[in-house]
Amino acid sequence: MGGGGHPPLRLRLTIAYKGTGYSGFAAQSDGVATVAGALSGAMEKVLKHPVRFVVAGRTDAGVHAWGNVVHFDSPRRPDEVDLPALQRAVNKMLRPDVVVREAQVAPPGFDARHSATARLYRYTILNSDVPDPFVVDTAWQVEPPLDLRAMRAACDPLLGEHDFSSFCRKPAAPSGSNVRRLIDARWVDLGDQMLRFDVEASSFCQQMVRSLVGTLIDVGMGRKRAGEMSWIVRSRDRAAAGQPAPPQGLCLWKVVYPPELQGRGSTLNPAS
Amino acid sequence: MGGGGHPPLRLRLTIAYKGTGYSGFAAQSDGVATVAGALSGAMEKVLKHPVRFVVAGRTDAGVHAWGNVVHFDSPRRPDEVDLPALQRAVNKMLRPDVVVREAQVAPPGFDARHSATARLYRYTILNSDVPDPFVVDTAWQVEPPLDLRAMRAACDPLLGEHDFSSFCRKPAAPSGSNVRRLIDARWVDLGDQMLRFDVEASSFCQQMVRSLVGTLIDVGMGRKRAGEMSWIVRSRDRAAAGQPAPPQGLCLWKVVYPPELQGRGSTLNPAS
Repeated sequence: MGGGGHPPLRLRLTIAYKGTGYSGFAAQSDGVATVAGALSGAMEKVLKHPVRFVVAGRTDAGVHAWGNVVHFDSPRRPDEVDLPALQRAVNKMLRPDVVVREAQVAPPGFDARHSATARLYRYTILNSDVPDPFVVDTAWQVEPPLDLRAMRAACDPLLGEHDFSSFCRKPAAPSGSNVRRLIDARWVDLGDQMLRFDVEASSFCQQMVRSLVGTLIDVGMGRKRAGEMSWIVRSRDRAAAGQPAPPQGLCLWKVVYPPELQGRGSTLNPAS
Repeated sequence: MGGGGHPPLRLRLTIAYKGTGYSGFAAQSDGVATVAGALSGAMEKVLKHPVRFVVAGRTDAGVHAWGNVVHFDSPRRPDEVDLPALQRAVNKMLRPDVVVREAQVAPPGFDARHSATARLYRYTILNSDVPDPFVVDTAWQVEPPLDLRAMRAACDPLLGEHDFSSFCRKPAAPSGSNVRRLIDARWVDLGDQMLRFDVEASSFCQQMVRSLVGTLIDVGMGRKRAGEMSWIVRSRDRAAAGQPAPPQGLCLWKVVYPPELQGRGSTLNPAS
């Protein structure tokens, strides 16, 4: 195992999780439940070797994912790993709030974090003065009225490449930058008093989506004007933006990779 | 209080709840968490008098409701009860898995149980070989394939008035009957591997919807033929039908009343 001279086997997993009971994808401190801990624990039991993940989206405590992507390297030979069987075994072992949606062999050069060209997040709002027991863990309840037109107008100045320091939890590290390219940002009216903010960017700094949503909801409530958004971005001042929206409304929906780095090998059908 | 000679005040509540943590709407034994217990506890704290509910749908353990209806009588005078304030106070007090969606003064003669002319239930299926962490508590995962066409054909013999003893948990009481009128029964393909069984009847006997779904899924999996459904109904034999589907997929969607017995007085807006 590991000494056979075969090329390293890199596996790529697409994972969904309800983040409610977890302190985030990865540990911020010891002794807390993390998605990575639950998933690697199950993987290690099946594969019988240590598993260390590289992840596309390091989601915070209470944040969900439908299509987060991780990779890890295995010392096993490709013909030793039955991917559908691995996926089934791990999904049976995991609590139902973490699921491996796809398990594939990664193409050469694939890196779950660095190969990603874009991330799509969705943030869900219950715009009602009555709670809904079925979306308590997956939406932020904001009482009406909300000026959706103003919230939409306030999205325009966000598009394109900007220094998003106003919406980032921490200043950029000396070697880093809070410059990001926002590819899309839009409000979708789902009906039944549900609204969803869909946002796509090259990448996001910490709490960026939640800070964008908090600020846009301020606009919807009339606490800020849509016309201020341009200035809020340019100020690069955390205090200029609104408070971050709570984590339960946020979901990492999808990670985008270049076509040549899509995974190979199917998910469940072969062995089912 | 109660001795003023005013006509009794009957209040009507439309309630939603996620039944996951409850042993049903009403207690089947002492010392267990029930929806009625949670709701009456909160109501009594606000109104400061005992509250006894009459309910349209006595849902079982783990079954959800979006539009269950209850009534109770209050010794208070109508002008003593601020309905929007009552609704807000109770919703704040309750855990988020039980919610009062509407609080109204019931029209004369209204009885939540006996005035109801029909109940609509929905049963949700996740037809996938991969679990979905977001619907674990609200859908039954059934692995594909399912023959939806056969499941639809099997609905036809159910429509109309029949003795549904084959689908009832207990034989009818000596004074009772398991004859029910099925008004509608259909499968809706929601996309994303989700299916929903929508069924409407004058009323349902215990576990009837879950037994219907269990039998229809047997048809979808090829364990039973659609053509057998007519015989299963006529046999009045519990053993002829399939096992009840699990409770988490079931939701009491709506209770129907005659137009003249709709509630008066609005819900939240006046006091918000």
